[in-house]
Amino acid sequence: MKVPGKEFTPYGKPSEYEADVSRFPSPNRVMRNSGVAWTPLHLLEGSITPNGLHFERHHNGVPQIDPDQHELMIHGLVKHPLKFTVDNLLRYPLRSQICFIECGGNSNAGFNKQPSRAAAGYFHGMVSCAEWTGIPLSILLHEAGIDKKAKWLIAEGGDAFVMNISIPVEKAMDDAIVALYQNGERIRPENGYPLRLVLPGWEGVLNVKWLRRLTVSDSPAMARNETSKYTELLPSGKARQFTFEMEAKSLITSPSSGMVLKDGPGLYQISGLAWTGSGKIKQVDVSTDGGRSWAQAELQGPVLPKSLTRFRIPWHWQGGPSILKSRAIDETGYIQPEREVLLANRGRHGFFHYNAIVNWEVESDGNVNHVYNRNEKENNNLGLDASWD
Amino acid sequence: MKVPGKEFTPYGKPSEYEADVSRFPSPNRVMRNSGVAWTPLHLLEGSITPNGLHFERHHNGVPQIDPDQHELMIHGLVKHPLKFTVDNLLRYPLRSQICFIECGGNSNAGFNKQPSRAAAGYFHGMVSCAEWTGIPLSILLHEAGIDKKAKWLIAEGGDAFVMNISIPVEKAMDDAIVALYQNGERIRPENGYPLRLVLPGWEGVLNVKWLRRLTVSDSPAMARNETSKYTELLPSGKARQFTFEMEAKSLITSPSSGMVLKDGPGLYQISGLAWTGSGKIKQVDVSTDGGRSWAQAELQGPVLPKSLTRFRIPWHWQGGPSILKSRAIDETGYIQPEREVLLANRGRHGFFHYNAIVNWEVESDGNVNHVYNRNEKENNNLGLDASWD
Repeated sequence: MKVPGKEFTPYGKPSEYEADVSRFPSPNRVMRNSGVAWTPLHLLEGSITPNGLHFERHHNGVPQIDPDQHELMIHGLVKHPLKFTVDNLLRYPLRSQICFIECGGNSNAGFNKQPSRAAAGYFHGMVSCAEWTGIPLSILLHEAGIDKKAKWLIAEGGDAFVMNISIPVEKAMDDAIVALYQNGERIRPENGYPLRLVLPGWEGVLNVKWLRRLTVSDSPAMARNETSKYTELLPSGKARQFTFEMEAKSLITSPSSGMVLKDGPGLYQISGLAWTGSGKIKQVDVSTDGGRSWAQAELQGPVLPKSLTRFRIPWHWQGGPSILKSRAIDETGYIQPEREVLLANRGRHGFFHYNAIVNWEVESDGNVNHVYNRNEKENNNLGLDASWD
Repeated sequence: MKVPGKEFTPYGKPSEYEADVSRFPSPNRVMRNSGVAWTPLHLLEGSITPNGLHFERHHNGVPQIDPDQHELMIHGLVKHPLKFTVDNLLRYPLRSQICFIECGGNSNAGFNKQPSRAAAGYFHGMVSCAEWTGIPLSILLHEAGIDKKAKWLIAEGGDAFVMNISIPVEKAMDDAIVALYQNGERIRPENGYPLRLVLPGWEGVLNVKWLRRLTVSDSPAMARNETSKYTELLPSGKARQFTFEMEAKSLITSPSSGMVLKDGPGLYQISGLAWTGSGKIKQVDVSTDGGRSWAQAELQGPVLPKSLTRFRIPWHWQGGPSILKSRAIDETGYIQPEREVLLANRGRHGFFHYNAIVNWEVESDGNVNHVYNRNEKENNNLGLDASWD
């Protein structure tokens, strides 16, 4: 307090004491610009993800797009093919929605035979939550005049991978947004600058970044990321495909894996996040005894649909070993499953869409680690190479 | 799309094409670390302000505080004086609230005899909105055991100015938060890292940054910023002091001063922000003919109390001159006043708490400028030096 403080900054950044609060990149071993970078959920609080820490998922890096050169085309089964510049789009009505985006591969270390040693965010942090603002896609499709035969939109990104994927027309006409803004400012480059398709509650890969083309069609593209990826070969031999809506999930972010309750026994606050692509979170139960008993956590209001919902509950730690769990229930009545239930349903080829209950074991010395249920049978999942393409 | 994109970044930043989207510093002429830096509201959408663009107001710069060295003391009329480290505080229950913070001096160029030539954000952008997370102050005060004689808390900041100000105990026990997080991450240095007092809906100066001390007292401090500043000498000769709650206000952010409707006549979207310290915004009316007729704008839900609320309404510009106005009404029934009403109430010494209706004039060539009402009498306000101390 004895020296004058620093001057103003045009664009602020976090304190230098917070340098460890960063995304954790897991690039592909060969292609360093492909893979994922995780949101450090275990170091955050509340429900909004600051833009600098929103998770990243790229298939060939972050394109550097001049917005004055960027165009969005809508064509295919439409009466009037249309092309828009960013300036054109800004003449249309805007809508804002706070919602999460979650990668379909989030948490998939849960399929591994051994519990993960990663911090909670570097295991489950391919989910983030922001206020997205843009043009309701339905408005642009109405203007283009979609044909009665139209059933799908093939969305294409402007990256070097030419990311493409198929979206049912019903969702496009419902709450899809051609987003320009993320938490008030223009979308960050790594999240799709200047245009991103946002499909609230639906799998991340469908929220196409650097959006440049929407082809209206009577059939899906059967693109790479809806056939060989983001699908599951089930025990029945059938593939689980087009699993759009992200199922209810929850995660205790504090205390969580890698933390230490260094002050010893006493009163702690359990804090975590719950979310569902089906609407609102109705309830989150927390257990501190490995699931023998459960208590209802307090949900931080306002509980918004398809958004990260913060839950909290006090816990008096007696000092002995303890297993913490959280279980989300959404407004449809769906209950987040235990891991053995999820594994049994998915069989040996599970890799995507892992939403099982997470266990954090608190040891007597206060160390917190990820563990599986003790009564689980041997996991017969094949286990896959964890390097992201 | 023909070159691979860039690699991952631990902490992201905006596109280089958005370099103009920045805070606008108005430092004091002598003390470059004092003054304000404005949020560019005219370049933002939605209701959340990204942390890098939250407005700044300092009296002696931004202290660089090591959180491990920082302590919060609560003393005075209490049974148990208490001292907390940041780690201590993190053992307490947390609460999150999305709310605006607005400087009591925001928009005060409206008192000037001539309309402002500044962009909307550099005239009205000492208001920002974020999700703040921290410990309800009531919990800490209960633990300290405040005396029955206690009526005020004197809050003190850890900056070189030693900012201090008086807060009624009722507000402290109601919804005040000792905040640690802003939009999910730790508070930025310029917004009070590591601790800020957040008083939802109340004047910015009371939201003490770098919070280090709360002295419980039976009387206010009568500090500089509640006597010679942030007060008004009224026409009656009495001073208007302790005007805590920010009154309802609104602002059209697009189109706004300095913009050009370069595409000529046609359909435009009017978009703006409304807010009130009294709770929720109930209604925003928009006029495009200088106040002769009004239409009700659509409010972007969810409308949250004491938060920035986005309103939008389509407008068919015929091409002639036009005066745009917005008028906020809050849930108490309070209606944002016209400028002449506000000036008449405040008299010759108005400088703070300007919340009058703003006029943007659209000229036939599409240029947008700030204007006053044509029928206004000569403004007899003394006008004050606009340099911030």
